[in-house]
Amino acid sequence: MTNQAQPARPWSDTFPKLAEMTENMLFGDIWERPQLSKRDRSLITVSVLTALYRTEQLRGHVTRALNNGVTRDEIIEAITHVTFYSGWPCGVNAAAVAKEVFEGAK
Amino acid sequence: MTNQAQPARPWSDTFPKLAEMTENMLFGDIWERPQLSKRDRSLITVSVLTALYRTEQLRGHVTRALNNGVTRDEIIEAITHVTFYSGWPCGVNAAAVAKEVFEGAK
Amino acid sequence: MTNQAQPARPWSDTFPKLAEMTENMLFGDIWERPQLSKRDRSLITVSVLTALYRTEQLRGHVTRALNNGVTRDEIIEAITHVTFYSGWPCGVNAAAVAKEVFEGAK
Amino acid sequence: MTNQAQPARPWSDTFPKLAEMTENMLFGDIWERPQLSKRDRSLITVSVLTALYRTEQLRGHVTRALNNGVTRDEIIEAITHVTFYSGWPCGVNAAAVAKEVFEGAK
Amino acid sequence: MTNQAQPARPWSDTFPKLAEMTENMLFGDIWERPQLSKRDRSLITVSVLTALYRTEQLRGHVTRALNNGVTRDEIIEAITHVTFYSGWPCGVNAAAVAKEVFEGAK
Amino acid sequence: MTNQAQPARPWSDTFPKLAEMTENMLFGDIWERPQLSKRDRSLITVSVLTALYRTEQLRGHVTRALNNGVTRDEIIEAITHVTFYSGWPCGVNAAAVAKEVFEGAK
Repeated sequence: MTNQAQPARPWSDTFPKLAEMTENMLFGDIWERPQLSKRDRSLITVSVLTALYRTEQLRGHVTRALNNGVTRDEIIEAITHVTFYSGWPCGVNAAAVAKEVFEGAK
Repeated sequence: MTNQAQPARPWSDTFPKLAEMTENMLFGDIWERPQLSKRDRSLITVSVLTALYRTEQLRGHVTRALNNGVTRDEIIEAITHVTFYSGWPCGVNAAAVAKEVFEGAK
Repeated sequence: MTNQAQPARPWSDTFPKLAEMTENMLFGDIWERPQLSKRDRSLITVSVLTALYRTEQLRGHVTRALNNGVTRDEIIEAITHVTFYSGWPCGVNAAAVAKEVFEGAK
Repeated sequence: MTNQAQPARPWSDTFPKLAEMTENMLFGDIWERPQLSKRDRSLITVSVLTALYRTEQLRGHVTRALNNGVTRDEIIEAITHVTFYSGWPCGVNAAAVAKEVFEGAK
Repeated sequence: MTNQAQPARPWSDTFPKLAEMTENMLFGDIWERPQLSKRDRSLITVSVLTALYRTEQLRGHVTRALNNGVTRDEIIEAITHVTFYSGWPCGVNAAAVAKEVFEGAK
Repeated sequence: MTNQAQPARPWSDTFPKLAEMTENMLFGDIWERPQLSKRDRSLITVSVLTALYRTEQLRGHVTRALNNGVTRDEIIEAITHVTFYSGWPCGVNAAAVAKEVFEGAK
């Protein structure tokens, strides 16, 4: 996978091993495996980052999800669904992040 | 319950189902049930948001708690108590948030 | 939605409001919405329960996922993917649960 | 506070410092402070242990709550309320634990 | 690294990719890197599994820590220290697990 | 222990009991115990705060770790190791924080 859509990694020079594993194992291997489509992987990742309240990482993955073929309505519905399984704070936090991304805010 | 004291919801137009459930189920039904007073519900909610490190949601609920009859001393004591059950980072994070709210900071 | 595939709820008599909301809101409303297929909802739910280390609830949802059209290979791949986003303990815990379900253990 | 209602501590000989702090700081100091009643402290603790999915510790604290003047209906309502703030798995897990305690199971 | 001290993996046939990454990346690469000793890595891992309440994985890693040169007293102290940063339930849960391991229980 | 290296506590006047326990119990007692060196305690604390995604508290503890004799390379390696046990978002979040601290940012 090209690194066009990779989130910025200002830490990569300081953490070369972590950067290498992110590039090679996570995006270069796992994300490229055919057992799940990129659309499905993005649907899963947005859902998990919502449930874990990982606000910063969620931001980039909402963008990635749109690029991978998850529609806005599907992202909205996934966050709504996950609200029940992780609690209202996780859901409304993710809703605010997704809205910003949809509106083109960085 | 009127929505005077509802936290702002900039995402509600984008997430109409989530907004509807927040308004009707969570605040319109659960919070209005008589089995626990609003004072008790606020004491519980501030405690849980402290333990889960939900900083943004905690801010609004500290204000709501004061409006629902939880005293400042009770909020301070609840956060102190919860520090033991969720760890020092959760406690000091909530302490900083509560102090800002008490001092009228937004 | 019929309650054929509902997880057992031994607590429902003691917690009637929670049982009502589980039946009506969660399974009767959210799970039935067309914005995401049941297959997608199950893929999301198995992933989130893996990430949150909710072992008991994961067990029933792996069964539900198979019934909703998620293949074994997709469940295996979702858990593998989520391992990176929530850590090795979450992943291996979910792998053990999924294996038991696949083998027909209750 | 007497240790009649203290949870069993099989680890206390192996972890003397932890046992000392549990006895003196947590139960001997914090729980005895007058800024919140024992009834309120128990309401808070049951709620937080529900939200954090601390099944084993929740068991003992439901019993303690009943001893401290929280009614069954209040415990049921607190768990129901907290379900919204921490997600369905936390709520149903706590509901199952509370039901067992109510029915006199250890 | 040999798999003498590896935790049992009943799921490895069903999850071959996860098993491969566990064997090669996690234990074969990360754990073998010289930037931190195995003794330090075990001290860290026991601490993190305590803080995350990963009871099952903690069990095997307490054994591994003893094999990697962390003393019992250091394990006891680490768990006691981490109790403050993750809360009493995490600490007492880990204390119970460590005690069982020390006493040779499986 | 002197309070030279203590993190700022703007909440301490509002939360005197929490401030007292932080000063006396946590830093004055636990951190000073000889059963683990300060270097080991810092290695543990940075690792746990990474795993729990406690960004604000991690910032101060990376500084403390450097002062307590943990090298930059050891901090980098600990965060890399913990990434596997708590997930990529925790690891990259901690990497960004550590980088800022190393570069002398506040």
